[in-house]
Amino acid sequence: MDRRKEYLEKADLLKPALRVERVRPVAGLPAEPMAEGDSLLLDFGNHHVGHVTLKLNYAGSHPDAPVWLRLKFCESPRELNETVEGYKGWISKGWIQEEQLHIDVLPCELSLPRRYAFRYLRVEVLAVSLKFRLAVEDAWLDSTTSADDGALAPFEGTPEEAAIDRVAVRTLRSCMQDFFEDGPKRDRRLWLGDLRLQALTSYATFHGDDLVKRCLYLFAAAAGDDGQLTACLFTEPKLEGDDNWMADYALLFISTLKDYVAHTGDLETGRDLLPVALRQLELSESYFDPQTQLVRDGDAKSLTRRQQSKGPENQANMVDQSAFFIDWNLTLNKQAAGQAVWIYCTRDALRLMALLHETDGAEALRQRIEARSAAAVARLYDGERGLFVSGTDRQVSWASQVWFALADVLPREDALRALENVALDGEAAIMVSPYMMHHYVDALYHLGCPEKAHQVMMDYWGGMVRLGADTFFELYNPANPDESPYGSPIVNSYCHAWSCTPAYFLRGGAKER
Amino acid sequence: MDRRKEYLEKADLLKPALRVERVRPVAGLPAEPMAEGDSLLLDFGNHHVGHVTLKLNYAGSHPDAPVWLRLKFCESPRELNETVEGYKGWISKGWIQEEQLHIDVLPCELSLPRRYAFRYLRVEVLAVSLKFRLAVEDAWLDSTTSADDGALAPFEGTPEEAAIDRVAVRTLRSCMQDFFEDGPKRDRRLWLGDLRLQALTSYATFHGDDLVKRCLYLFAAAAGDDGQLTACLFTEPKLEGDDNWMADYALLFISTLKDYVAHTGDLETGRDLLPVALRQLELSESYFDPQTQLVRDGDAKSLTRRQQSKGPENQANMVDQSAFFIDWNLTLNKQAAGQAVWIYCTRDALRLMALLHETDGAEALRQRIEARSAAAVARLYDGERGLFVSGTDRQVSWASQVWFALADVLPREDALRALENVALDGEAAIMVSPYMMHHYVDALYHLGCPEKAHQVMMDYWGGMVRLGADTFFELYNPANPDESPYGSPIVNSYCHAWSCTPAYFLRGGAKER
Repeated sequence: MDRRKEYLEKADLLKPALRVERVRPVAGLPAEPMAEGDSLLLDFGNHHVGHVTLKLNYAGSHPDAPVWLRLKFCESPRELNETVEGYKGWISKGWIQEEQLHIDVLPCELSLPRRYAFRYLRVEVLAVSLKFRLAVEDAWLDSTTSADDGALAPFEGTPEEAAIDRVAVRTLRSCMQDFFEDGPKRDRRLWLGDLRLQALTSYATFHGDDLVKRCLYLFAAAAGDDGQLTACLFTEPKLEGDDNWMADYALLFISTLKDYVAHTGDLETGRDLLPVALRQLELSESYFDPQTQLVRDGDAKSLTRRQQSKGPENQANMVDQSAFFIDWNLTLNKQAAGQAVWIYCTRDALRLMALLHETDGAEALRQRIEARSAAAVARLYDGERGLFVSGTDRQVSWASQVWFALADVLPREDALRALENVALDGEAAIMVSPYMMHHYVDALYHLGCPEKAHQVMMDYWGGMVRLGADTFFELYNPANPDESPYGSPIVNSYCHAWSCTPAYFLRGGAKER
Repeated sequence: MDRRKEYLEKADLLKPALRVERVRPVAGLPAEPMAEGDSLLLDFGNHHVGHVTLKLNYAGSHPDAPVWLRLKFCESPRELNETVEGYKGWISKGWIQEEQLHIDVLPCELSLPRRYAFRYLRVEVLAVSLKFRLAVEDAWLDSTTSADDGALAPFEGTPEEAAIDRVAVRTLRSCMQDFFEDGPKRDRRLWLGDLRLQALTSYATFHGDDLVKRCLYLFAAAAGDDGQLTACLFTEPKLEGDDNWMADYALLFISTLKDYVAHTGDLETGRDLLPVALRQLELSESYFDPQTQLVRDGDAKSLTRRQQSKGPENQANMVDQSAFFIDWNLTLNKQAAGQAVWIYCTRDALRLMALLHETDGAEALRQRIEARSAAAVARLYDGERGLFVSGTDRQVSWASQVWFALADVLPREDALRALENVALDGEAAIMVSPYMMHHYVDALYHLGCPEKAHQVMMDYWGGMVRLGADTFFELYNPANPDESPYGSPIVNSYCHAWSCTPAYFLRGGAKER
C-alpha cells in the first residue's frame, strides 16, 4: 500500500505559480562610477526574495581587463560588517550570501543566477583596471512569492500592533515560495513544525490553503518506508526527506492536517492523508515506557537515527538524548513536554477523525490519552510546587508547563498556576526560540488570558520591531539582541517561518479552550 | 570618404566558426568525495581555450547547505601556488583566472559561463556542510579554436625542433579564436604588431588566410577619424579601437597587408586596404624632424595621446618618450629603431604597390627612403664603432642594429658587423621580449646566416620548452626564468601570440634578402 507516488503527483499538481514584482532600490542609486576598492550599498526598501540584475557600464577608456566584483546580500544591516573570513561557526559558511564574479564585457546586464533573500546589496569593486571605472547604472530585483497580496485583509489595530502585523505578514510572504520555506536565506526547506505555524498564519492572512495542502502531500510522499515522517524535506532536484526525525514534528502533522480540514472543509484530503497521520501515532508508541506510560527520558532509538545523520560537531552542539525537538534550548529535558505534545496531537487526531466521521480506533486513542494524562499527573506533576517536572533530574522548564497547558491535562486554574509558578522560578529552563514563544502565547490564549497573551507577544516580537526588523528572526533573545547561536549574525536567518505567528494572533486566530 | 562601416561589414562576414573539441582530464579523476578544505587538481594534458563543465554529486546525506567552491585555472603550474591576495602588481588582478561560486542543488552539471585559457584546474571546497561531501564525478572542456588542424602539414626535423614547432603551433592555435588574440588568458585582444607575426606563422601552418583578412579589415574599421590605426582593438560588445597608438604598429599594417597579398594573391583586398596603409605613411610624417629627416627623439605628440589613455601607474611604468613600441625594454631609446621601422615598412609599401600595379606616389616614397636612409647613416651610424646609436645620449641597443639590418640601410657586411659588435657591447640595451627576439632571428635569416638564426631560436625558445612549456610565453628571460614583469606569474600570459614564430622559421618562412 505504498501511496507515496500518488501523494507526490498531488503535491506536484499544487505547485504554485510564483508572483513576480520588479523592485528597484530606494537608496544607493544614482552612484558615481567606481574604482578599485570602492563600494556601493543598495537598499531595496524591504525584505525580498528573488533574482537581481545589475545594469553595468563603464566610465573612461574601453575596458581592457575583466572587472572583479564582490556582491553581498544582507537581510539585516547587522550582516554588513561581518566577513566570511571572520566566521568560524559550525553552520556551513556556504550559506553566506556573498558572491565573487568577473565581468568580461561592458556594458552588460548582469543577471545573477541564484536567488537571494535580502534587503541590502553591497557591490564592491575588487578589481578594475586603471583605464576605466565601473558604473552601476541601474539595479532591479524580481521579487517572488506565492502569497496573494490581494487576499490579505487590511489590518485594524493600534500602530504598534500594525507594525508587528506588517512584519509578521512580510515574514510569511517571503517564506511562501514553491512551498512554505523555513527561511528563504537559510535553510530554504520545509520543516513540519514550522509548516504548522505558517499554515495557521496563512489562514488568517493570505489564505494559501492550496500551499498548505501541497506541503501536507509533500510530507506524506517523503515518508520513510515505515511511514515515519521526516522533520524536514528537500524538493530539489527531486523530493527527498532529510534523514532527520523529530517525534514532536511528526506528531504535529496530525494537528496540521486537522487544522487544514477544519479551516477548509476539504474532507477528501483529510481522508486521503488520515492514514499517514494515524501512522505517526502508531510509530510514537516506541517512545513510551509501557510500564509507566511515560515518554522515556532520553530515547536511544532516536539518538541513533539522528547521530547517523549528523557530523561530529553537530552531535556535540545539537543532538540531545531525546527524540523530541520542543525548543532550541540544549539543556532542556524534553520528557515532560514530549508527553504533553503526544497528548495534544492525539487529541487533534480525535478531532480530525470526528471531522471525517471516522470512529474506528477512536475509543482506543481516548483511553490512551486518559492513561497517559493520568501518568503525567501522577509522575511528572509536582503538586506541592504546582509545576510539571521532567526527567530523572526532575527539571523544571517553561516548555513543560506550556505544553501541558495546551494538552489540557490539568484543570484550567492549575495549568495557569503552573505558568505563574514557572515565571517565579529563576532556575527554570527558559524558552529560546520564537517557535516556543508561540506556544507560550498560544497557551495563554487557550487558558483564557488574552490580555497577558497579547502583552507577551507585543513585548517579544515588538522587541524585534524596535530593532528595525523588516521580518521576524529565527532566534531572538531580548536580553541580548545581537546574540547569534552560530557565532556570527552572518549566518543568522532574519526571516524565519516559525516567527510569523503574531499575524495569526493579532487577526484573531487563537481560540480559548 | 569614411569607409569604416564597409570595412566592418567585410570583417563581420569573415567571422570564423569556432571548432569545438571535447577534452577530458588526463589526470585528477576519479577522485574521492571532498570535505571542506579538500582540493583536487585536474590536468587537461595540454594548453586549451574553452568552456568547462563539472559533473558534481554528493556522498552522504542530502545536501543541506550550498557548496562553496573556488576554481583556479592555470596555464602554467607556476601559477598554482600564487594567490590573489599575494598579488600586488600594477596589471589588474581582474585577469586572474579564479572563481568563487555556490552550488545550490546537487547532483548538477556546472557549466561555467566564462572562457578560460588553461591546462590545470584546481577545484577547492571552501565550504561544504558536515552532512555530505562533494564528488566531482566528471569534468570536461569544450576546447575551441578557429585553426584548422587538418591544414597543418606534419613537421619534419630533429626531435628538438619538433618540440619547439609543436609548442609554437599550439601557441598560435590557442590564440586563433574569433580573431588573432594576443593572449587567450590575458589580454584577449587584437594587437597589430602581434597580428603580423601570427599571420606569417599562420601562412606556414594552419593557412588561416581569411582570419588574417578579417583582422586587417577590423583594424581598418577601427581607425580614428584621421585614419590612424590603433595599436590594438576590442571586438566586444562592438568593435572599438583602444586609445593606444604606437607608430611602429600602425606602420606594420603596411607589411602585414603586403605579406597577405603576396601570400594569397588577393589583389582585391590589397586595393581595398591600400589607402588605409598609405594613410599611415602620411600620418607618420609628423614623427620626423624635417631638418634632419630623422625620427624625433621623444615624440611629444605621441606622449600626450598615450598619457591620456593611461592611469598614473601606467604612466610611470609603461610610457616612455617615444611614439614607437619596438620592445618592452623601458630604458630603450627608440629613435634609431623607429627610423629603421619606418624605412622597413615604407619598402613594404613599395612592394605592395608593385603587387597591385600601383605607381602613383611610388617615386616620392623611394626618394624619402633614400633621404631617410642617408640621414640614418650620416647621423645615427657610428662608423668607427660599426654600430647604430640612438637619441641624444647615443644609446647602443640590440633593437637599433636588428631593425636597421631588416631595413637594408647598410651593405650586408656592415649590417652583420653591427650585430656582431652589439653582442660584444656589454652596455648595449638588451632585447627583452620574444617579439624583439623574433626580429633578431628574422634579421639573421635576412642577412644570410640561417645557422646562427637557427641557433638563436633553438636556444631562446628551446629554453621555454625545457621549462615544460605547452605554449610560448609573453615574456621570457633565460637568465631568470621565473621573472615576472608584473610582480607575480599569476597574471603572466603563458600563451602569447608574438611568441609563436618558431613554427614560421622552422617551416621555412624566413627569406634571405
